[in-house]
Amino acid sequence: MNIPDKLISLLKQENRFLIASHIDPDGDTIGAAIALSMAFESMGKAHSVYDRDPIPEIYRFLPGRERFTSSLPDLKGFHIILLDCNEPERAGLDNTDNLYSVVIDHHETLKDFGDIKWIDPSSAATGLMIYCLIKGLGVKITKDMATNLYTAIAVDTGTFRYSNTTSEVLTACADLVNSGADPYLISEALYNSWSGNRFMLLVRALNTIEIVNDAAFICVTKEMFAETGTSPEDTESFSNFPRMMKSIKLSAFLREIKEGHWKASLRSKGDLNVAKIADALGGGGHKNAAGFTMKTDLKTAKEALLRAISNKKSE
Amino acid sequence: MNIPDKLISLLKQENRFLIASHIDPDGDTIGAAIALSMAFESMGKAHSVYDRDPIPEIYRFLPGRERFTSSLPDLKGFHIILLDCNEPERAGLDNTDNLYSVVIDHHETLKDFGDIKWIDPSSAATGLMIYCLIKGLGVKITKDMATNLYTAIAVDTGTFRYSNTTSEVLTACADLVNSGADPYLISEALYNSWSGNRFMLLVRALNTIEIVNDAAFICVTKEMFAETGTSPEDTESFSNFPRMMKSIKLSAFLREIKEGHWKASLRSKGDLNVAKIADALGGGGHKNAAGFTMKTDLKTAKEALLRAISNKKSE
Repeated sequence: MNIPDKLISLLKQENRFLIASHIDPDGDTIGAAIALSMAFESMGKAHSVYDRDPIPEIYRFLPGRERFTSSLPDLKGFHIILLDCNEPERAGLDNTDNLYSVVIDHHETLKDFGDIKWIDPSSAATGLMIYCLIKGLGVKITKDMATNLYTAIAVDTGTFRYSNTTSEVLTACADLVNSGADPYLISEALYNSWSGNRFMLLVRALNTIEIVNDAAFICVTKEMFAETGTSPEDTESFSNFPRMMKSIKLSAFLREIKEGHWKASLRSKGDLNVAKIADALGGGGHKNAAGFTMKTDLKTAKEALLRAISNKKSE
Repeated sequence: MNIPDKLISLLKQENRFLIASHIDPDGDTIGAAIALSMAFESMGKAHSVYDRDPIPEIYRFLPGRERFTSSLPDLKGFHIILLDCNEPERAGLDNTDNLYSVVIDHHETLKDFGDIKWIDPSSAATGLMIYCLIKGLGVKITKDMATNLYTAIAVDTGTFRYSNTTSEVLTACADLVNSGADPYLISEALYNSWSGNRFMLLVRALNTIEIVNDAAFICVTKEMFAETGTSPEDTESFSNFPRMMKSIKLSAFLREIKEGHWKASLRSKGDLNVAKIADALGGGGHKNAAGFTMKTDLKTAKEALLRAISNKKSE
């Protein structure tokens, strides 16, 4: 991995940083931010770790999670480091025009923000980039850093099940295990820490399954949330379940935001591009994971989605 | 990993082998056997690959699966290699008394079978041992060998989620990816290749969930099999789903074998030893995965299981 020389120089020379992870944070942005914060600490660097939004319950097992603040310090003299995103808005920041800024990200982008840009879409996770960066800085990776970096990489590779799982990913994770990361404890925290209510909501959602050709639809209504005492955060990963079926190429999870207003999460396999389907319905996303919202009833939303799928396929 | 010198010598010097994997074969025994067969082939060794039982549908993506035979050749002059098991019965073999035999296994055992025994319970998978053995023999690992070995290790570590996931496991798998194993294709084959009927059976099973303290029960009746057009093989991994709940320490999956006859699969987390619970009910297994059968009705079977759990806890 080619770390820009001037990034290493900047981090060694300067002494006041804001590590900013993206809004609606996931395991990659959180783990990468905490690990970098710990590296800064061992280098004696003054810094803050910022996320506008709270850390989801599922990531509260991470050592160092208390480092996050949602209130910004006076940023005068700070160097901003955007992690796992490539523009200030995505990190919930504004008024950064006069500040020196660094972007460390693995998402494809056409944006041109940042005085130093280290954007590597071939990297499976921003956590993998931060792993290389910390080693490049000559900082020893502690057990707590390793736990955060392993988690970041595990989340973005589906614990080594997605197509971004390279030998570099596995080699880095082997090294992180040697530094103290515990694959079992991390996996239990990520996959086997559901509340009973969340599980019951999943069962209800799966009962709504409807299959049309190679597309599967499941949904959760406001009533189901109320009856199970759950919230939208609990539906994380629901859209993946119908993908377990070999014949299903597109899985759609529809969640009722409020009466007559639905949010759809689309997941696909292989070459089926759900970003284009979502785009046709006013949403967006990536090739295999996208979404949109629609102000209508469930039946109409499904019909619109089926039409968009059909149009996409006949292109 | 310490490969016995005399094992290396035997494999280099002799020229007629029977690779025998265990009955009711899983991904570890199958992948290890195919990879060793391919290594023998590149060494020019005459050999057969035997399993008494058919290869389950889920493993039919493995290159070289057609090497398996369920009919034994005349074994005179053969050297038997038991893989992922440590006694001939477990491999569906008898009359092996006069044959030279090798055991390569990672299961704990008190058995003392084999002229050469390489038993390493610290190894995550027999596939990992065969990986080391093939390297120890100086044979180049091909793409097809890598796919089989990666699958063997992936299956026995839950794709790197179980507590046997060591840095050695990850390092070996990184090397196997460099040799051509594709983590994504393997994971899709293992986890996202369910039939629609199997998925519908899972949904039905999850609807039967009953939670008593930290134990969860799900079941599948003969009627459910009939209505979904599925078979017992389709219930593989069902017992894992209730484990997703943090509060659940023991997950029991009960399957109706025939009227008034139930088979229970138990899965536990951490220190809860289900082997002892199964043992009390006439079954057996490992600490975190065990089972038993019971000739009674579902209600009585559940009550007996609850009593056994309660007795185990009060010990």
